[in-house]
Amino acid sequence: MKKQIGPSGVTRIALYYRVLSSLTEEGVRYVSSEELGERTGNNAAQVRKDLSYFGNFGKPGVGYDLTDLQDKLSQILRKEDSRKMALVGVGNLGSALLSYDRFKEEGFQITAIFDNDRRKIGCQRGGLVIQDVTELKPILSKDGISIGIVTVPSAATQKVVDELIEVGVRAILNFAPSRVTVPDFIILQNVDLSIELDRLSFFLENKGSIPSRAK
Amino acid sequence: MKKQIGPSGVTRIALYYRVLSSLTEEGVRYVSSEELGERTGNNAAQVRKDLSYFGNFGKPGVGYDLTDLQDKLSQILRKEDSRKMALVGVGNLGSALLSYDRFKEEGFQITAIFDNDRRKIGCQRGGLVIQDVTELKPILSKDGISIGIVTVPSAATQKVVDELIEVGVRAILNFAPSRVTVPDFIILQNVDLSIELDRLSFFLENKGSIPSRAK
Repeated sequence: MKKQIGPSGVTRIALYYRVLSSLTEEGVRYVSSEELGERTGNNAAQVRKDLSYFGNFGKPGVGYDLTDLQDKLSQILRKEDSRKMALVGVGNLGSALLSYDRFKEEGFQITAIFDNDRRKIGCQRGGLVIQDVTELKPILSKDGISIGIVTVPSAATQKVVDELIEVGVRAILNFAPSRVTVPDFIILQNVDLSIELDRLSFFLENKGSIPSRAK
Repeated sequence: MKKQIGPSGVTRIALYYRVLSSLTEEGVRYVSSEELGERTGNNAAQVRKDLSYFGNFGKPGVGYDLTDLQDKLSQILRKEDSRKMALVGVGNLGSALLSYDRFKEEGFQITAIFDNDRRKIGCQRGGLVIQDVTELKPILSKDGISIGIVTVPSAATQKVVDELIEVGVRAILNFAPSRVTVPDFIILQNVDLSIELDRLSFFLENKGSIPSRAK
């Protein structure tokens, strides 16, 4: 890697990858930086710059070979590794994520689920048995799970995050709005869905500048 | 606006705005592009570039006046307008969004909710009565709602989106994984939560390049 790519860059790479998947389904063989840009709301120069972080694959006048580029982005995003995830908090959001097909389609699989509600523990949800969150550490310490999804109420978030880290989870997707602190070697991604609304709201007021991705 | 800002840029502006809000709570008065960058996982040059789209407010050696910058970003993101939203589909995800505090905190308010399930229609959820989706058009046509949130199964998405557009909704946040087509003047934002997992997964494998936002 010539230079470090930031979180926005990785998001764009993930978006390009999804466009390539649907172009493959359409039977397309080559794609230009212009088209990739248009379908993701970026300009062609940005696309070329992002892809150049990982080496240069485009042919001038022809574009990118779809299969080559898809393989390369798949490697970058480690799509070949199936990722096992634990989900803590089987409320409305947790249940929604359990039935969220895009996770599976993109190679992510929830394999263990936990809650602290006595009425839920032992019940099935999404083909898995809801386990007691007080058993999280002994259960997960054998599992080699690297990603944790946390959808518990704010007050419980830090404790759950600490326990996940203790059993070897290295990346955490946190949906609670509360602030959580983690050691430097842990990847923490806080999901704030109100950001999406800010974006909608902005483009609603600035219609002249609607990029294709927002359409 | 000197130049058009893309969707990634607006997302960064929304992130800067959230950092400013928490710095204000901490009693801070000035903030540097370095700090804004560090807290959002971008470099200082990117921060200065983003903010320069909307005019130049930083003072060299001092940084940005927090109150001024917050006011300016608030205007850009139209935070002063309270946004009314309709939610269609009161399943797990819809229910989770109804109790999602960040929406209210950021000035977005769900004021009408719809479902097609006879057992749900007429029930209360989040202080609102679930209304029959077949009544969506007559009910919403009086309401002046500009944003619609769609959390219905894929097969029903296009029909719901079409009806929302007919009653004057101009921006749609779609959580269904299906493809939806909309006229050019409509802002459609498809939310794909698997992108967040791709990002986690990438930084998990590239620990040397973890930016602070992902921490």
